[in-house]
Amino acid sequence: PDMQASRDTRRLPIDKVGVKGIRHPIVVKDRNRGAQNTVADINMTVNLPHHFKGTHMSRFLEVLADHDDAISVENLPDLLTKVQERLSAHEAHIEMTFPYFMRKEAPVSKQAGLMDYQARFVASKKGDEFLMTLGVDVAVTSLCPCSKEISQYGAHNQRSLVSLNIQSNAFVWIEELIELVEANASCELYAILKRPDEKYVTERAYENPRFVEDMVRDLAEKLDADARITWFSVASENFESIHNHSAYAFIEGGEAR
Amino acid sequence: PDMQASRDTRRLPIDKVGVKGIRHPIVVKDRNRGAQNTVADINMTVNLPHHFKGTHMSRFLEVLADHDDAISVENLPDLLTKVQERLSAHEAHIEMTFPYFMRKEAPVSKQAGLMDYQARFVASKKGDEFLMTLGVDVAVTSLCPCSKEISQYGAHNQRSLVSLNIQSNAFVWIEELIELVEANASCELYAILKRPDEKYVTERAYENPRFVEDMVRDLAEKLDADARITWFSVASENFESIHNHSAYAFIEGGEAR
Amino acid sequence: PDMQASRDTRRLPIDKVGVKGIRHPIVVKDRNRGAQNTVADINMTVNLPHHFKGTHMSRFLEVLADHDDAISVENLPDLLTKVQERLSAHEAHIEMTFPYFMRKEAPVSKQAGLMDYQARFVASKKGDEFLMTLGVDVAVTSLCPCSKEISQYGAHNQRSLVSLNIQSNAFVWIEELIELVEANASCELYAILKRPDEKYVTERAYENPRFVEDMVRDLAEKLDADARITWFSVASENFESIHNHSAYAFIEGGEAR
Amino acid sequence: PDMQASRDTRRLPIDKVGVKGIRHPIVVKDRNRGAQNTVADINMTVNLPHHFKGTHMSRFLEVLADHDDAISVENLPDLLTKVQERLSAHEAHIEMTFPYFMRKEAPVSKQAGLMDYQARFVASKKGDEFLMTLGVDVAVTSLCPCSKEISQYGAHNQRSLVSLNIQSNAFVWIEELIELVEANASCELYAILKRPDEKYVTERAYENPRFVEDMVRDLAEKLDADARITWFSVASENFESIHNHSAYAFIEGGEAR
Repeated sequence: PDMQASRDTRRLPIDKVGVKGIRHPIVVKDRNRGAQNTVADINMTVNLPHHFKGTHMSRFLEVLADHDDAISVENLPDLLTKVQERLSAHEAHIEMTFPYFMRKEAPVSKQAGLMDYQARFVASKKGDEFLMTLGVDVAVTSLCPCSKEISQYGAHNQRSLVSLNIQSNAFVWIEELIELVEANASCELYAILKRPDEKYVTERAYENPRFVEDMVRDLAEKLDADARITWFSVASENFESIHNHSAYAFIEGGEAR
Repeated sequence: PDMQASRDTRRLPIDKVGVKGIRHPIVVKDRNRGAQNTVADINMTVNLPHHFKGTHMSRFLEVLADHDDAISVENLPDLLTKVQERLSAHEAHIEMTFPYFMRKEAPVSKQAGLMDYQARFVASKKGDEFLMTLGVDVAVTSLCPCSKEISQYGAHNQRSLVSLNIQSNAFVWIEELIELVEANASCELYAILKRPDEKYVTERAYENPRFVEDMVRDLAEKLDADARITWFSVASENFESIHNHSAYAFIEGGEAR
Repeated sequence: PDMQASRDTRRLPIDKVGVKGIRHPIVVKDRNRGAQNTVADINMTVNLPHHFKGTHMSRFLEVLADHDDAISVENLPDLLTKVQERLSAHEAHIEMTFPYFMRKEAPVSKQAGLMDYQARFVASKKGDEFLMTLGVDVAVTSLCPCSKEISQYGAHNQRSLVSLNIQSNAFVWIEELIELVEANASCELYAILKRPDEKYVTERAYENPRFVEDMVRDLAEKLDADARITWFSVASENFESIHNHSAYAFIEGGEAR
Repeated sequence: PDMQASRDTRRLPIDKVGVKGIRHPIVVKDRNRGAQNTVADINMTVNLPHHFKGTHMSRFLEVLADHDDAISVENLPDLLTKVQERLSAHEAHIEMTFPYFMRKEAPVSKQAGLMDYQARFVASKKGDEFLMTLGVDVAVTSLCPCSKEISQYGAHNQRSLVSLNIQSNAFVWIEELIELVEANASCELYAILKRPDEKYVTERAYENPRFVEDMVRDLAEKLDADARITWFSVASENFESIHNHSAYAFIEGGEAR
């Protein structure tokens, strides 16, 4: 007996039902190297009309197994279409979060190392309409303007995590978002810093003090000005070096679909 | 110089700015014992008009220090009013997440033990308008109807985490939400179970198989029927004993303000 | 049938068996206020001789329920004796980790706020012999001597987490360990800092640069010189503001029993 | 000035100093497919003699960058030798933790899917002596013998996480350890289970009840009997479906070097 396909009488549709916490290797499109291998945490759901008792959970995993080594922004619509078909659903959703790496040279010594970021695709297909949100979390240095201004010497600074999410009407590289965040911080981070590099990043941060409010405002200004971007949210969490809590700021812009 | 109060020229208001990740002891109103001591993770934010450069982060902590040993649903409006005043803000927000405990007797032996839950207050004040969402995460047993139906003996079961959030037009106890979730699971959990209790919970779960879809639908039905509740969301995550991922379902009802 | 008490024939004793991940409110002895309420994560285990098939898990919870509102360093031996008796075990172990709070005044404005720490008791009783390790995790500011030395202005600094564990032949307050760590950092952290306080902590950190190596060495030196302390370990993890990884150092001293 | 190389006068050697929390893509040797791509969390440390003030943190990252796409059990000794050389250290340590995947067929339908595990290499080189510990965390189903015995129908079961660590005098595949754990559980987990598979795993678990004590004892027995394995530890944490805490057992065997 297919219990999941049997009739339900509570007359309650379910917004989202599916599988959560799947860990899966993926290959993501990379601007410089063509593609990069990484590992994603994945959630997949569909809507369930009120008259169905349950969904068929194993079919999500079957669709995923079919797409194994080729998940990218380009084929997410296809993947969601297959979910709609296999699960007879009007709406299909996928969320993928994964570490993403970029090779970066140190600012003075030019030694190359890998910087790690967290990226995510949050995509939906409702009938024929596809919608995707692209997100990155980028760690940077923030240096406090107030601390610099009032102190005889020094200024407190710390690692901050900037979380950026966008919807767009044209293709945007993960790398573009990362570079945008890094260009608007007190200083960007590097995997390898030799002595002259350390002097450079220390002085650069001191020359570019930014409140948490400045970090989100400057990014919001740039995102507003980019004609491709139809909606965005930007948050910064500064892990204050003088407190055991964070400073935090958040701006949303455009119209989320 | 008060840099935070200086003019900003980017003409960008900030939706939320404040402090995040504060850990603080609190006293929460308890239906049976009057009050209980626990420890909260707290975020506090305000909106920032476009012409101010920054907010005054230390003032959030000052307001919190003033309210030290008496944080409850009743005085959250007061606390947010003080945040509005001290930070000259139109909108003030607070999120508090904390472990919450209920003494429960085992079903047969009647031995008492403490069960732990996670609860949260998410409250905002915009001008004079106060809005609060109350939430609980309740762990329960779920037993799979399909597995029971198709198998000669046994049925896979597992721990599930049900997350319930509500907005209401009248007072609702944390304990009411917990009891509602526990009554609609295959079986509820206990801290202490003696042999006859273990027999009871094993058989009770087997007699009450529930899909993840059933768990959220039954709760949505009950919440819909409660005249006090104006909005709700209910999610269940089943940590499947036969997979290394979760089954998940989500329903939202009413109109979120 | 008491299956747990039945004979096992594999001739394999079990080092530790018990319960893990219990969340429970506790009251901890406080140097200034007599006692403080907090919430602990608790693991409790015993050894199991080779001829027993299983242990009786519910009895751990019963012992815990009996000691409900009075867990302290003083009554941990009693608690473990009860575990030994109720579970007929030669060895009993408990691990408790909990947030711990100290009221601290800001350095200049003297405004008081609560600082949060993580503390732990790791205690064992083997026959009549009781042994306890006391631990604290203390967040502080570290400022890099090399960055200060080579840069024209500024110096990178960050939040660091110092983890200290000790065994002693006499009573040691949690507060003593916290104060020891804070006194040996570039600067200590505060919940509330007004403008003159922020100037103070910025300048103090700049005047006290410390490598991660310095932090653990200075603490090891002090712990070595304290006649009460028979064993210690000290680690520091610096969440570098210029990298997306940590600097780390670890020293162990004395003889662990 | 090379501050790190300057003399320290506290006469305190440091046991371990280095870098922590590095996220890096790696390629691991795979029994079936030759190699698999994954992402590791990495810690690297050396000992520091008492007369040196500090270590050179960037050199760890340089060694890692050199070994980029070829980290395996085979070249860990080389990697550690380079760390010893570049940092002029007698002792070098590395810890790598990473998701690891195996393609598995469902037991009846034979549908293939990827199962995810957590694996780790913990390796040291002291002078010329190399030592490695290999570890895996494997999620499985456990079904309670007592619950089955005392109940008219059903038996509580749940996901358990078995953590196995070994030292050996000959090569051991990650896959061997995973298969050993899976063969000794009530039932193993699968990514994809169709209806006949679900019947199979439900009945199989019911036919193979195991206490947490049984799981670690049966594994200890097998590891004891394997002549290659010179030391092991095995732990199981059962996320009880009837409690909000875990049952836990731990056995260590052989002599850790």
